[in-house]
Amino acid sequence: MTDDTRNSIHTGQDAIVEALGKGKLKRVRKLVRPMHPGKLASLLEALEPDQRQTVWQQVADEDEAAVLRHLDPQMAATLHRDSDHGDVDADLHDQEENVFTHIGSVRDALQAGKYKRVGKVFRHMHPAKAAGLLEALPPDERSAVWETLDSERSGKVLVHLHEEVRAKLALEMDDEELVAAARKLDLDDLVDLIQALPSGSGRQLLLSMDEQKRKQIAEMLSYHEDSAGGLMNVDHISVRADVRIGSVLRYLRLLEDLPDHTDKVMVVDRKNRYLGVLRLSRMVTSLPEAKVSEVMDDEFKPISVESSSHEVARLFEDLDMLSAGVVDGDGLLLGRITVDDVMDIIREDSERAMMNMAGLDEEADMFAPILTSTRRRSVWLGINLITAFLAAWVIGQFQGTLEQIVALAVLMPIVASMGGIAGSQTLTLVIRGLALGQVVGGNARVLLIKELGIGLLNGVLWALVVAALAILWFGSWQIGGIIGAAILLNLVCAALAGLVIPLVLRRFGIDPALAGGVILTTVTDVVGFFAFLGLATLLLI
Amino acid sequence: MTDDTRNSIHTGQDAIVEALGKGKLKRVRKLVRPMHPGKLASLLEALEPDQRQTVWQQVADEDEAAVLRHLDPQMAATLHRDSDHGDVDADLHDQEENVFTHIGSVRDALQAGKYKRVGKVFRHMHPAKAAGLLEALPPDERSAVWETLDSERSGKVLVHLHEEVRAKLALEMDDEELVAAARKLDLDDLVDLIQALPSGSGRQLLLSMDEQKRKQIAEMLSYHEDSAGGLMNVDHISVRADVRIGSVLRYLRLLEDLPDHTDKVMVVDRKNRYLGVLRLSRMVTSLPEAKVSEVMDDEFKPISVESSSHEVARLFEDLDMLSAGVVDGDGLLLGRITVDDVMDIIREDSERAMMNMAGLDEEADMFAPILTSTRRRSVWLGINLITAFLAAWVIGQFQGTLEQIVALAVLMPIVASMGGIAGSQTLTLVIRGLALGQVVGGNARVLLIKELGIGLLNGVLWALVVAALAILWFGSWQIGGIIGAAILLNLVCAALAGLVIPLVLRRFGIDPALAGGVILTTVTDVVGFFAFLGLATLLLI
Repeated sequence: MTDDTRNSIHTGQDAIVEALGKGKLKRVRKLVRPMHPGKLASLLEALEPDQRQTVWQQVADEDEAAVLRHLDPQMAATLHRDSDHGDVDADLHDQEENVFTHIGSVRDALQAGKYKRVGKVFRHMHPAKAAGLLEALPPDERSAVWETLDSERSGKVLVHLHEEVRAKLALEMDDEELVAAARKLDLDDLVDLIQALPSGSGRQLLLSMDEQKRKQIAEMLSYHEDSAGGLMNVDHISVRADVRIGSVLRYLRLLEDLPDHTDKVMVVDRKNRYLGVLRLSRMVTSLPEAKVSEVMDDEFKPISVESSSHEVARLFEDLDMLSAGVVDGDGLLLGRITVDDVMDIIREDSERAMMNMAGLDEEADMFAPILTSTRRRSVWLGINLITAFLAAWVIGQFQGTLEQIVALAVLMPIVASMGGIAGSQTLTLVIRGLALGQVVGGNARVLLIKELGIGLLNGVLWALVVAALAILWFGSWQIGGIIGAAILLNLVCAALAGLVIPLVLRRFGIDPALAGGVILTTVTDVVGFFAFLGLATLLLI
Repeated sequence: MTDDTRNSIHTGQDAIVEALGKGKLKRVRKLVRPMHPGKLASLLEALEPDQRQTVWQQVADEDEAAVLRHLDPQMAATLHRDSDHGDVDADLHDQEENVFTHIGSVRDALQAGKYKRVGKVFRHMHPAKAAGLLEALPPDERSAVWETLDSERSGKVLVHLHEEVRAKLALEMDDEELVAAARKLDLDDLVDLIQALPSGSGRQLLLSMDEQKRKQIAEMLSYHEDSAGGLMNVDHISVRADVRIGSVLRYLRLLEDLPDHTDKVMVVDRKNRYLGVLRLSRMVTSLPEAKVSEVMDDEFKPISVESSSHEVARLFEDLDMLSAGVVDGDGLLLGRITVDDVMDIIREDSERAMMNMAGLDEEADMFAPILTSTRRRSVWLGINLITAFLAAWVIGQFQGTLEQIVALAVLMPIVASMGGIAGSQTLTLVIRGLALGQVVGGNARVLLIKELGIGLLNGVLWALVVAALAILWFGSWQIGGIIGAAILLNLVCAALAGLVIPLVLRRFGIDPALAGGVILTTVTDVVGFFAFLGLATLLLI
């Protein structure tokens, strides 16, 4: 061994050890891959056992045999065992349970330093699944896995992540990696990614594109994220109405592969104005001599670029569409929306409603730092505290009564709680009705009568039950009568509040799922405490 | 006029008046349509004005002119005005807002007896939209509209209704109408309909089918409604791997129209075993001489007939599929599932989670009779009452303390309420994580540490705030300290409960969205009251 090679091993080793110390596995991989097998073997022998294993995990599968040949036999055997081929594929067959087994197996593999195994699991997985799995990992393990992915994969996974995690992982990549990851993305996904990135990185990414793509992206960025313009892609194929099916087929054959989710091509006139659609299913059943205008569907309505994503989702659902063209105000064809994006909207809408009800942000990371999560959640707790103090203030007005009859303090949470539950039943029904477009001015009065009827009947029923139990407990007919009356009153008010609150919030453009619950329980608490303690003060003191 | 015609007019009139009295507009229509225009005119003149208008609304558009010619000019003018042509189409253009305008306009038209206008609105509408609109109408108006629909339309609308409304409207049809309505349905929709009908009508409907269809339906009924077998349709097209694309195209041309949502045909062997798929988009870009085996996708995995609908939905979402084949355990192709059914599942899943949280059934009719709704909702109120009494019992243990320091009664709802909100934040996050498969044994411990950390930090923050406010209000450092400690303890317990409760419920196969909230607030109420009043008793008394 000359001084020179020794030096270069040491230089290589230094750089690698430095990268290992910083957890930059990608850099380790970059340094290790071009090395001569013999050199790499010497380097491996010179490392500490745990570092050795980590470096070994960065060696490409196809180079392993060559490196092993240069190693001391015992070490070779140990490392070969570590490579852990084979059982990953078996795991992947069991489609249903695999997220379950994977989270466990990925975390085990990471803790054991088996980066190859992890890389393999992620390479075999659909990007959406990989994104779900990444989100289920704590941040440090998430970064470690992220390091094992190559850039093409990273881009596709980024698209499927919730915004907060996406921005964080994108920031862990250097600009060059980010550009490589973005290269393979569809235009609509690229736009989403740029929107989710901090503006500096987003700008950098945009500048890396060629002139034409940059122009397209800039145009798409001008539409609101939650509009048809923000959802559409510009990968549609359009044909003229006066050509023959045979020519269309020849044209498509030139393209070789159609964009994903192409179930129809758009038919436009000379000025790119939307005329209708030509379904592939119609194309394959038509004679080549037929003209496009004879077999196209000109009743199939395009979507306006201004429509909200919510309206787009309802149209897709109601009309069972797979894709639809997007047009501007003048009827010019701008792009198309496909059903896969719509499914994401539906899922996100329902996630948002559920998360908003608890005052959470649906794009937030499940494993965000504790301080960040605490700050976010404390806002909701603060709002609730104001309403709780309002309820406490109502109770405080009756301190004199409570001092004399302490049984009231024992029973009062029951009145508030029953009202809260009954009100939230009406509220939930109305929120769903609003989401489906089934509750509007036209039938709100009928619904009001029905809900008040239910409130009255359930009020009478539970007033009797609670009154009986209160009489048994405290032996006082008067307390029984008072709590019964308070419950009846509170349940009727709850029905009224459950219907009116979401309608009013909607009128002011506030999402009823977000604020409805808090306002409702404030109303039922205040009405419940006031009715119960007020009646007691009037009748018993 | 001979006695005979006079008689027949009177017989016709009697039957029609009888049908009118019972609100059987369909029957009126059946009686009116075959009548001679002159006869019909005499009959109209003989009727009371409001009955006349109702009968007039049942006359077919194309017969109107002939009947009008036989009428007294003034009456003819009045009736012609009633027909109300023209402005329906204008309404239909405005796609976004139309449910809004429609509910109002339908109800107005029904109240004015303009059945023709209503019939037209419904005839122009997509069945899913018509179903949504029907559900938004009160039951009697719903039945009146239902009477105006012809059977083909009725069948398609039935499919899109929630179960309770569907069963009710199906029962309003006689057997003959139901059979006619079912004739045009896809097999999977037919199976859904039969499952939703009371068993008598379902059996009747099944018996009306021909041998082959009955056998197919019986087979599909044998799969669970919420499995891939229950979702699949048998309208797939399958081809052999060894034929040429040109032959496939010729075969498809013979079919003229492909089933809805055909984006691919299935490739099978001689024994109908699944081999892969041939995409239409690939078919149109291939040369006619190419063999199916060369351009098919044999990596595209079929769905097992045993998969749950939840698994099917996740597969469609993760893999962005438009349709997929369904196979049995031996790999035999049984049918296919299309993305439109999957969108329904996603929507239903999210509806179910939201409705279940309030103890409501997502298939229930918004306008179910008051008594029915009251009975259903009272179950949930009853369960809540038990937990409310549990909380009251805890307070009851401290009556002695409350008697001495009534300020405690004023403040105690604040402790319970803050715990409830903090707990529901953790609960919601975990329920979503479970639904997405992101919270499992493998990372529950990390999540626990994170949530406890948040509970602790938010606990300290709000303990200080509430303590300060309590000291200001009641001027007692001791009460401030006690309520602060109770809030801190309750928020930490809430984080623990929010994580543990859904995991335990899931283990026992109970939907965490259904029972999680009630159990959680019970825990936070009990812990909150016990900690606050218990500490006060120890330290102040």
